[in-house]
Amino acid sequence: MTKLRLFTPGPTMVSPEAMLAMAQPLDHHRTAGFRETLKQCVELLQYTLQTKTTPMVVTGSGTAAMEAGILGCCKPDAKTLVCHSGKFGERWRDILARFNLPHVEYQLEYGQGFKAEALAQKFKENSDIKAVIFVHSETSTAAVSEAQGMAKVCRDHGALCLVDGITSIGTIPFKMDEWGIDVAVTGSQKAMMLPPGLGIIAVSDRAWEVIDSHQAPTYYNDLKAYRKSIEKSDTPYTPNNQMISGLKFTLTQIKETGLENVWAKSALLAKATRTAVEALGLKLFASDPVDSVTAVAVPGGVDEARLRKDMRSKYGIHCAGGQGSMKGEIIRLNHMGYVDEVDTLGAIAALEWTLAEQGYKFELGTGITAFSKVIQAN
Amino acid sequence: MTKLRLFTPGPTMVSPEAMLAMAQPLDHHRTAGFRETLKQCVELLQYTLQTKTTPMVVTGSGTAAMEAGILGCCKPDAKTLVCHSGKFGERWRDILARFNLPHVEYQLEYGQGFKAEALAQKFKENSDIKAVIFVHSETSTAAVSEAQGMAKVCRDHGALCLVDGITSIGTIPFKMDEWGIDVAVTGSQKAMMLPPGLGIIAVSDRAWEVIDSHQAPTYYNDLKAYRKSIEKSDTPYTPNNQMISGLKFTLTQIKETGLENVWAKSALLAKATRTAVEALGLKLFASDPVDSVTAVAVPGGVDEARLRKDMRSKYGIHCAGGQGSMKGEIIRLNHMGYVDEVDTLGAIAALEWTLAEQGYKFELGTGITAFSKVIQAN
Repeated sequence: MTKLRLFTPGPTMVSPEAMLAMAQPLDHHRTAGFRETLKQCVELLQYTLQTKTTPMVVTGSGTAAMEAGILGCCKPDAKTLVCHSGKFGERWRDILARFNLPHVEYQLEYGQGFKAEALAQKFKENSDIKAVIFVHSETSTAAVSEAQGMAKVCRDHGALCLVDGITSIGTIPFKMDEWGIDVAVTGSQKAMMLPPGLGIIAVSDRAWEVIDSHQAPTYYNDLKAYRKSIEKSDTPYTPNNQMISGLKFTLTQIKETGLENVWAKSALLAKATRTAVEALGLKLFASDPVDSVTAVAVPGGVDEARLRKDMRSKYGIHCAGGQGSMKGEIIRLNHMGYVDEVDTLGAIAALEWTLAEQGYKFELGTGITAFSKVIQAN
Repeated sequence: MTKLRLFTPGPTMVSPEAMLAMAQPLDHHRTAGFRETLKQCVELLQYTLQTKTTPMVVTGSGTAAMEAGILGCCKPDAKTLVCHSGKFGERWRDILARFNLPHVEYQLEYGQGFKAEALAQKFKENSDIKAVIFVHSETSTAAVSEAQGMAKVCRDHGALCLVDGITSIGTIPFKMDEWGIDVAVTGSQKAMMLPPGLGIIAVSDRAWEVIDSHQAPTYYNDLKAYRKSIEKSDTPYTPNNQMISGLKFTLTQIKETGLENVWAKSALLAKATRTAVEALGLKLFASDPVDSVTAVAVPGGVDEARLRKDMRSKYGIHCAGGQGSMKGEIIRLNHMGYVDEVDTLGAIAALEWTLAEQGYKFELGTGITAFSKVIQAN
């Protein structure tokens, strides 16, 4: 009878309705029915990503989709600037390194977001940059980068702009075409409100030119194969069609809710959470906090592992800890997808109860009251 | 109210019980619960693949897992022999070509299986072969190769043996360790009785030595990353944990049924189907027919597209057609996984009814009677 609420920034909570949509009898993927489902997903993804390009669905993690984008757009004879201030930015750096692709690292401290102005400066220092990779919402630190401004800087300098939008797309404002983003990537287990298993990638005409100018060193993650198939509402390899049925279901929910309303809800939950955290005398980890996930610095004297364990085992609130050197230092609370004010209020309450058990000094109710006031004032 | 029965050789039919196992509330993948589930899957896969190695689960199609095996075991400074007589063998050849890996092609006509003796001859012609790739059950033609004997020939010549067991493992006898197979690959949507979305790969100690001797040119499909994680019952990237719950469920069913019984059931269904097909005056496409899927040559005067369309729309029997140059020439009927005598009898009946509608000359009931007698005599 444990009532589990996933507050991890992926996988996020999946509704019973979405689970049951995926539990419908399985059909084959080489059928008119599947092609129609995939076609509808493409149209719904065009809305969610705000693009006229044709988004592609990869059976794999978001990492698979990001690898596809990097190998297509970052050529062995061109230099890529990779921005990193967290575990995911580091992963994209690692992919460049793995394939011996020439790159310059632009590193900031964990918790910081990248700014357009500073990126422009990097172009002055490296005039030969042909592509820029950055994480819009760095899930590991809960920091946001200036995607719109950075994309413009890339355009101004004739470089492709590859954006890890895995925890931004469908949660915070993201306008692929209007902002001039060349590669946008996300995954099923974040704002798409599904289990992990699908990656999504959209590619601009400008990026296709680069992709078409060489053969990327990959077979499974080759975007050309995906494009050839998606033109016929198909996939190059056997797709997870069960999840694609689920994707149609959840993307339809996003469309019906309206993207602006979805963005506003995450922004409100994030704002209320940040207000509650500060009312409790706690610090935010990110200096540029994002609205899709909040990272809270664990105060001195509090054991992070015990805190998260108690939150889950006693109150069913599963929040994430820190990765790498941030382990033990932070807890992270999700604001993406199928989560609302009531859930989040409960998460703040569970945080209060478990902090109190570890002797952290504060007045019980401070956090939930602060949270509550932000919601009421909205 | 249409009662659909998938007779495609992947995805195969998924039971409502397995669907509901996957529809249970989603948990996070970095939890003791998930690690326990994955650990149990590993043990159950050890049974299903007949291996003491530690099988790994990849979020992706079988192609992703096969790419992982090829890039790990086929080095740029070593020659690989790739056997192909169908679309999947050709795909593994294409992967070698994509990565410019030195290889020799050993091609047979569609419908033929590879033999151990002939493979030994190939080693005489190419003494420098370090790895051999073949498809145990070539799904596109329904032909079987001599996996056990071929693995021995590879061992005798000091070459690694990479086997696409995607439609053999869990359906026809397959004993990874006893036969000396170095890389065994399968996928979730075949004998594992799940939707597509997971690849499975097991690797011998001998193959790990080669994998450890270089860095494979991939990030997402890097076996070293999977091994490092699986040792802690974990995955390198966000896994499709929903499907891994399903995998535990269906592998447990296989274990409880007993592998020999699972193999025997497919063999019986295949034998009865072949007998029925021949009783109807039809020809098998494969000269070396496999027991996981049967390919039937469409007789002159019969329109294959109409045949399959009618079988599905009128009787809910969805069988596969031919791929590539086999399109229009064959239909294929699955014997893997969650399919039984009653289902298959119905498929033969639907074949009879739709053949009769196209004026094919035979005595109605001949096929189902022949099928029925084989079942009765068992």
